[in-house]
Amino acid sequence: MITLLTDFGTADGFVGGMKGFIKSFNPEVELVDISHDIPPFDIRSAAFSLLNYASTFPSETVHLVVVDPGVGGERKPLVIRWNNYWLVGPDNGVFSLLLKEGPYQAYVIRRQKLPVTSPSSTFHGRDIFGPAAALLAGGKEVNRFCTKINRISVHPSLSCQQKKSVFVCPALAIDHFGNIITPFHKSELQRLKKSINTIRIKSRTINHVSSYYAQEQPGHIMALWNSLGLLEIACNQGNARKEIGFDLNTDKVYIYYDLNGM
Amino acid sequence: MITLLTDFGTADGFVGGMKGFIKSFNPEVELVDISHDIPPFDIRSAAFSLLNYASTFPSETVHLVVVDPGVGGERKPLVIRWNNYWLVGPDNGVFSLLLKEGPYQAYVIRRQKLPVTSPSSTFHGRDIFGPAAALLAGGKEVNRFCTKINRISVHPSLSCQQKKSVFVCPALAIDHFGNIITPFHKSELQRLKKSINTIRIKSRTINHVSSYYAQEQPGHIMALWNSLGLLEIACNQGNARKEIGFDLNTDKVYIYYDLNGM
Amino acid sequence: MITLLTDFGTADGFVGGMKGFIKSFNPEVELVDISHDIPPFDIRSAAFSLLNYASTFPSETVHLVVVDPGVGGERKPLVIRWNNYWLVGPDNGVFSLLLKEGPYQAYVIRRQKLPVTSPSSTFHGRDIFGPAAALLAGGKEVNRFCTKINRISVHPSLSCQQKKSVFVCPALAIDHFGNIITPFHKSELQRLKKSINTIRIKSRTINHVSSYYAQEQPGHIMALWNSLGLLEIACNQGNARKEIGFDLNTDKVYIYYDLNGM
Repeated sequence: MITLLTDFGTADGFVGGMKGFIKSFNPEVELVDISHDIPPFDIRSAAFSLLNYASTFPSETVHLVVVDPGVGGERKPLVIRWNNYWLVGPDNGVFSLLLKEGPYQAYVIRRQKLPVTSPSSTFHGRDIFGPAAALLAGGKEVNRFCTKINRISVHPSLSCQQKKSVFVCPALAIDHFGNIITPFHKSELQRLKKSINTIRIKSRTINHVSSYYAQEQPGHIMALWNSLGLLEIACNQGNARKEIGFDLNTDKVYIYYDLNGM
Repeated sequence: MITLLTDFGTADGFVGGMKGFIKSFNPEVELVDISHDIPPFDIRSAAFSLLNYASTFPSETVHLVVVDPGVGGERKPLVIRWNNYWLVGPDNGVFSLLLKEGPYQAYVIRRQKLPVTSPSSTFHGRDIFGPAAALLAGGKEVNRFCTKINRISVHPSLSCQQKKSVFVCPALAIDHFGNIITPFHKSELQRLKKSINTIRIKSRTINHVSSYYAQEQPGHIMALWNSLGLLEIACNQGNARKEIGFDLNTDKVYIYYDLNGM
Repeated sequence: MITLLTDFGTADGFVGGMKGFIKSFNPEVELVDISHDIPPFDIRSAAFSLLNYASTFPSETVHLVVVDPGVGGERKPLVIRWNNYWLVGPDNGVFSLLLKEGPYQAYVIRRQKLPVTSPSSTFHGRDIFGPAAALLAGGKEVNRFCTKINRISVHPSLSCQQKKSVFVCPALAIDHFGNIITPFHKSELQRLKKSINTIRIKSRTINHVSSYYAQEQPGHIMALWNSLGLLEIACNQGNARKEIGFDLNTDKVYIYYDLNGM
């Protein structure tokens, strides 16, 4: 099984070209679309998306990710072994959020070992990453066409800064519903034996963490732990980003904590 | 076989998470994407979409629908047996248009019977509905993890009002091409032994029902019976909604009838 | 295996209806989504998309294309045999770019030979093209439900005009990233033993052909040979169409050539 995540859109037929080429290599492989709607060149969105699906698939699934603004240039084409999965894609940090959660082994693809004559320099999804994924899905030994490496690129980290009584958090992502998702995991509070006092975001103050969206009135701004265990600012049946006027790149979420029970 | 209809978009990887979780439960199951582009929280659009595909699939297909603004709250998680199909989704009326067409049996999912440890309260698509669909697709007996119920929620009905010489119809949906689709089925005329005299919509008057789009000049506003047998207002190679300035929520279509042949 | 390309969008469930109907005919067939995001009625976009995927699939794949503004009218429903593939769709020129690249044999579908009772006049994707594709994928002999024809429609050709020292080229397409793709293939230069001197597009002049996007500075307008071997105007990590203000329908790319090496 190979999953596909790209920023190609579907209309031009480029994703179709990748699918066809993979199927020509390995007609038995099952292709599962994740998304082709990652905004063009948006490595951060792709990195967040991976968090939501990579570890839900069966062992030995190959996760193919082609968000690759540096295609044809010096960034390396990677294969990564992580938790019984294979990850295939460019060395531009797209895997770094995911790889925080465990050990991994990285490899660089040796393109001359792939059974592809004259790969293009503009479409490595079709000519390099797709064929590598097809080989892995077919059980080919990784050392036959890849070389171990020791380091991969890390995307500028999106983590919270702990200050005296507050965590200052960037947004990790804003999802399709306008929910603002922070990198703050609930295990952090358990580790510190702290609880949340107040959350501030732009001009809003939130005094408790809700359990589910419909617990609050429609239109109400709330905080909750999302399905990954991350703190999220949401708006029941509305769009929190729009309601709040939150800017993904510059605005922060302030999580004030104390030692009392929540 | 499981079909998937959601309002999640694909970019965040939430649909990917559902797919992976289902595949982990049941690697043999075939997943068929219907759409993830239902507008957020738009139960009515999802209900219309179901009309167009549910009954075209082979018997025993499981139709999974996750458009679920009430997730985590009191709305029940449903399994429905209808015409040799299984429907899985929230009890918010999303199935009510479809279920007008036949008898059905409804069940509520007992989440403690699902093999899922600590389901989230924000993502029942992954943690409750997906696993239930995977069990059904794998042939699990419904009574093993569900309890029969007698009533389900009905979405505010979108039906035509019959007045002296006219049916006053809301739009059921406006499709991707801007066609305005009414709930008025051609069998209604046969039942009443009536025929259509004139159709009025905003300032437009239409005097006959066309057979196909290209029968009229490009840009021409027309009426025809669509592929479900419903009366539709269309514009050949154009967008009827935009041409007419039709508002889905407030405007009506007036279907004047008489006893003469059409 | 059947691939699907339409301009239906997915939300209305029409694509779902096609998929279900095909699966009901032939439960074993594998469906591969190419795209349902072709702009409504845009035959030219669909024709370009086909170039990028049709020949990458394994032999005997059935490529189903439903971009069909003339549905229900006089345009013929086609089956085409091309290079060990089957193409199924309307006779409106959507296949003409692809068919420039080799011999083919065309057939018209005899709808009374299809096992479909009362096909609609507005949804031939579900009622005519889908069933024909399902039969072909199942190995049904084409002469059993089709009749050979000698000519098919050709879409207004999008080719470059060669003038004294310049090729004047329309854009074949503008892709998802804003790259402007011309019909000018690099083999043309080899054939003529010429090389490119200068490329002009709107007020911009480009003096060399780059090898890959990241070879130029971000935001830089460049030319390169794309993954089909066609000359493309691009902008590293940007959108060339927007940067240049290029109009797909009226603007041209001027490729000046000389006899010197490039």
